[in-house]
Amino acid sequence: MPGRGRARCASHRRRLIGVAVAAGSALLVSCKGDKEKDDARVALAARTGPATATGDTTTKYADDGQWVRPAKDFQGTRFSGLTEINNTNVQNLHVFGTFSLGTTRGVEAAPIVADNTMYLITPFPNIVYALDLTKEGMPTKWSFKPRPENASQGVACCDVVNRGLVVDAGKVIFNTLDGRTIALDAATGKELWDTQLANINLGESVTMAPLVVKGKVFVGVSGGEFGVRGWLKAVDENSGKLAWTAYHTGPDKDVLIGPDFKPFYKMDQGKDLGVSSWPADQWKIGGAGAWGWVTYDPELDLIYYGTANPGPWNPEMRPGDNKWSSTIFARHPDNGEAVWAYQLSPHDEHDYDGVNENILVDMDWKGSRRQLILRPDRNGYFYVIDRKSGEVLSAEPFGFINTTNGVDLTTGRLQYVPEKATRLGQVTRYNCPAAPGAKDWQPAAYSPRTGLVYIPHQNLCEDEEGLEANYIAGTPFVGANVKMYAGPGGHRGLFDAWDPVGQHVVWSKQEDLPVWSGALVTAGDVAFYGTMDGWFKAVDARTGHDLWKFKTGSGIISQPMTYRYGGKQYIAVLAGVGGWSGAIVAGGLDARDSSAALGFVNAMKDLPQKSTKGGMLYVFAL
Amino acid sequence: MPGRGRARCASHRRRLIGVAVAAGSALLVSCKGDKEKDDARVALAARTGPATATGDTTTKYADDGQWVRPAKDFQGTRFSGLTEINNTNVQNLHVFGTFSLGTTRGVEAAPIVADNTMYLITPFPNIVYALDLTKEGMPTKWSFKPRPENASQGVACCDVVNRGLVVDAGKVIFNTLDGRTIALDAATGKELWDTQLANINLGESVTMAPLVVKGKVFVGVSGGEFGVRGWLKAVDENSGKLAWTAYHTGPDKDVLIGPDFKPFYKMDQGKDLGVSSWPADQWKIGGAGAWGWVTYDPELDLIYYGTANPGPWNPEMRPGDNKWSSTIFARHPDNGEAVWAYQLSPHDEHDYDGVNENILVDMDWKGSRRQLILRPDRNGYFYVIDRKSGEVLSAEPFGFINTTNGVDLTTGRLQYVPEKATRLGQVTRYNCPAAPGAKDWQPAAYSPRTGLVYIPHQNLCEDEEGLEANYIAGTPFVGANVKMYAGPGGHRGLFDAWDPVGQHVVWSKQEDLPVWSGALVTAGDVAFYGTMDGWFKAVDARTGHDLWKFKTGSGIISQPMTYRYGGKQYIAVLAGVGGWSGAIVAGGLDARDSSAALGFVNAMKDLPQKSTKGGMLYVFAL
Repeated sequence: MPGRGRARCASHRRRLIGVAVAAGSALLVSCKGDKEKDDARVALAARTGPATATGDTTTKYADDGQWVRPAKDFQGTRFSGLTEINNTNVQNLHVFGTFSLGTTRGVEAAPIVADNTMYLITPFPNIVYALDLTKEGMPTKWSFKPRPENASQGVACCDVVNRGLVVDAGKVIFNTLDGRTIALDAATGKELWDTQLANINLGESVTMAPLVVKGKVFVGVSGGEFGVRGWLKAVDENSGKLAWTAYHTGPDKDVLIGPDFKPFYKMDQGKDLGVSSWPADQWKIGGAGAWGWVTYDPELDLIYYGTANPGPWNPEMRPGDNKWSSTIFARHPDNGEAVWAYQLSPHDEHDYDGVNENILVDMDWKGSRRQLILRPDRNGYFYVIDRKSGEVLSAEPFGFINTTNGVDLTTGRLQYVPEKATRLGQVTRYNCPAAPGAKDWQPAAYSPRTGLVYIPHQNLCEDEEGLEANYIAGTPFVGANVKMYAGPGGHRGLFDAWDPVGQHVVWSKQEDLPVWSGALVTAGDVAFYGTMDGWFKAVDARTGHDLWKFKTGSGIISQPMTYRYGGKQYIAVLAGVGGWSGAIVAGGLDARDSSAALGFVNAMKDLPQKSTKGGMLYVFAL
Repeated sequence: MPGRGRARCASHRRRLIGVAVAAGSALLVSCKGDKEKDDARVALAARTGPATATGDTTTKYADDGQWVRPAKDFQGTRFSGLTEINNTNVQNLHVFGTFSLGTTRGVEAAPIVADNTMYLITPFPNIVYALDLTKEGMPTKWSFKPRPENASQGVACCDVVNRGLVVDAGKVIFNTLDGRTIALDAATGKELWDTQLANINLGESVTMAPLVVKGKVFVGVSGGEFGVRGWLKAVDENSGKLAWTAYHTGPDKDVLIGPDFKPFYKMDQGKDLGVSSWPADQWKIGGAGAWGWVTYDPELDLIYYGTANPGPWNPEMRPGDNKWSSTIFARHPDNGEAVWAYQLSPHDEHDYDGVNENILVDMDWKGSRRQLILRPDRNGYFYVIDRKSGEVLSAEPFGFINTTNGVDLTTGRLQYVPEKATRLGQVTRYNCPAAPGAKDWQPAAYSPRTGLVYIPHQNLCEDEEGLEANYIAGTPFVGANVKMYAGPGGHRGLFDAWDPVGQHVVWSKQEDLPVWSGALVTAGDVAFYGTMDGWFKAVDARTGHDLWKFKTGSGIISQPMTYRYGGKQYIAVLAGVGGWSGAIVAGGLDARDSSAALGFVNAMKDLPQKSTKGGMLYVFAL
């Protein structure tokens, strides 16, 4: 069980072998491991002087100052080549401008900048604003308010968030909670097309940010807690017409599994596993949406994304691997045909889901150049995967884990700890990580200058009990009673720098509350993230030293970004607490109901004293 | 008709006789007048070198850096003696901190600072926050959310605003929209008492900021558009028990008119005018609330406040003077007995109301020292009144007026233009000022250093038609169809410096939108105000020169203030568009309905393109 020892090392028995840095709470931590890893760590530590890129991705970032999709690039790095704001002057940042979204629900989106215009999207009702960067005070150039279906709020599991819009080919393209994808003229805000993709009567909603590749818009469904049958759809960018649908359960033909499909591991091989890995007709209501991130490799011409948890949560109601829930798919963008799949958490026992981002980086790996996926997964393991073949090269814990004993790299299978399984009518205590995982949707960033991945995440455990769940279309279908609380150490959040080659944490910053914001890292060697009590923070990308912070008006659970206008660099972030973690504030939930927000409220009873709600843009400059 | 000529001079025929200043849009404007006024103007212009106080009020402002009530002092000056931020360095102001109120309705309140704590109150549901100024990021020390009656929103004429709380004797005291006055322990937020004063079933609500004097809390009612019978009540600060009620219509005994009552003008003298100046029982539903400002003179031991418009708006339904609507009362604080009253707008034809602030200043007036009220009234005249006797010493137009021909200083009577009267079933066009007056609730500031009054106000005219109105308790009782639009010049707002001695405008700044925020002026000779598209502005208090501005996230309709903590001066203001003027945004009203928000929407159709909603605190520092 090679995984077991490593898991224990970096979780149960993580030891400090580095030194505390001079400022802030960052600690250089690592884990004793095998020779190769130690060598890699030493190699990293030995880098001095000017930063050198560890991957060929550097050359892709000749930065034009734009930020046209939430993750900036197709590869999902959230790295900016801008250097005006850097680790020597970031402490001089001040508020350049602000703009109220006019909403009070959780704000998970990234500001988008294209052609001297900033585009913002609000939580439901998904209003889009275009702010004119060329004018004093960034006045609104146009705004667009869909006429949304209010009932869609009833099928949103975890606040009515939206994770961002994209700008492509002169169009602003975004999804609405009620399941539409809309394209607007980026210059005028005029609606070009509006395509209904999801059906709220089946519990379907859409919260994710679309990605546009080669004239196709990729949109995935939310609703793993409502018995949806998950899918990813491709819509023609010009006409708004549906191009293809890939379901995540059911027969191969529905999943777009055909002759090109070559999964690396045996467990993912076989005909119609999307049917046979479920009891009876359960696959028809088996969840496995796609509400996280899609990335794209132009060289291999493949898109990558992860599917969500199987439903219901109660695993005893769905014996089997429950394919293709909690799975990474590599697909051809043109026709959706699957090239490989890898199920991260087969028969997901704890809502570990699989929607997290796949960051695409080319890197030297044990002596040879590899096309990799870097992926901090919700189940707590940091995966390094060959993105051509789907082979897992490494899966080391970046958070505290006691529900599984690592990943068997021979079989690819996650090793569950049997006594931690979720059982009907029986409370299993101290399951770590809790249902939101060691890291949820909040996206990490990768710097080709440091070779590190900056991971915002949480440290939560839970008590968990399986319940009977009855499927009624469009209503909650969960089957679990959960209460979350802080994991070991009592801190609920972390912002970590992870060395994917050395396979260990380089520095780690503890935060009181879950770090539910995305990360940003720049060529100025500054990493940015936000906290749920409203602090927007800049730290040194190499050392984790605290460099600067500003308290925004509400908790931050969104995606910071940077852009250049008029030769000057700006940093922007949206404040507005909420989401699953902040539902107690955004939804005004009662702190006495520990199981509210699927058990997250129990871990966040103090949040109402630490953050008010309210969506607001902050732009910072030197 | 001495008033007529003056009115025409300063309104219809206002001419530029000064010079444009070097920066900004400020103009030194004045009006040709009689010799006395010209002399006063010359005297003002001749002042050079260090500022000299024009009134003895200066000595009252040895500033402790606190700001415990919305108007700062009992006299309502909104003047701070702090000088760290001044007209030589204000351009270096930056955002020190922000805090989201978590609400999206109009924010008219002032931040309050007492004992190193900042207290904020939101629009309905009137949540109170105590922010700890001693800690980084100003975290919330405590918050208090009343359990309010949601139905109260249905009897709020003009958004669900709250104009501020007060801190007195270790208590935070505030009113709720649903008609309660609540006292909290300022240190802990623990509720001390909660007294129901208004009855929403009668259309009563409370939006005003209370004033506490000598252990009594003064609270007035809103509801002039719902057929309330207006009142001011005094509540014992320690017990929360009702001490006295002064009605504003009805028999003298209900109005607390007794042997001490000595109105200056004959028109205000006589028995039970609160009955006889109304048809039949109309006084019982005659409006005349008190939702504006109460000020207090400790020397004379008198409180001053104005009453609201009579109801319904249709004046043909209520022949007579309609006392005591649109009236200033001077009362003993201990027992509420009236000492004098002066009806500013008898038989109010155009909802000119009378709630505006009475700023109490001692000043030389034509050779002798006088105890004065300075009052920019909604009807468009700037009143200078002897606050001991109620005699009007001056009433000159500070805005464009064509509905009246001035005030007859012999009789005290406002001179209506008959052809501008509101008539049943007949549209009268181009009535100026419109129903919100030349200036509404938004409070002016007075600087004893410059001797000037800084007046935020609007420039709106309207078309008006009387309608039949039927009284049904707790429902709208208006009886008018109104459409507002910009007055002469096309600008809808102004920020003016008025010389009360010279009786003319010294400088004037035109704004596109109504200036619906209060004013602040400091001993650093800087005046502050906000605009409905979110600009917070600092101008030179002497010249009107633009010194600095910052665009907040939403339109500003609140009351800026300044305080000192840890030896450092801060400026604070709440953003959050709404109120009567901003109801189109805060209430999401349809721009196609010109008569919405009592006709204000017609004048504000562009506001949704210029401001989003959202309540947010901004604190600025050097």
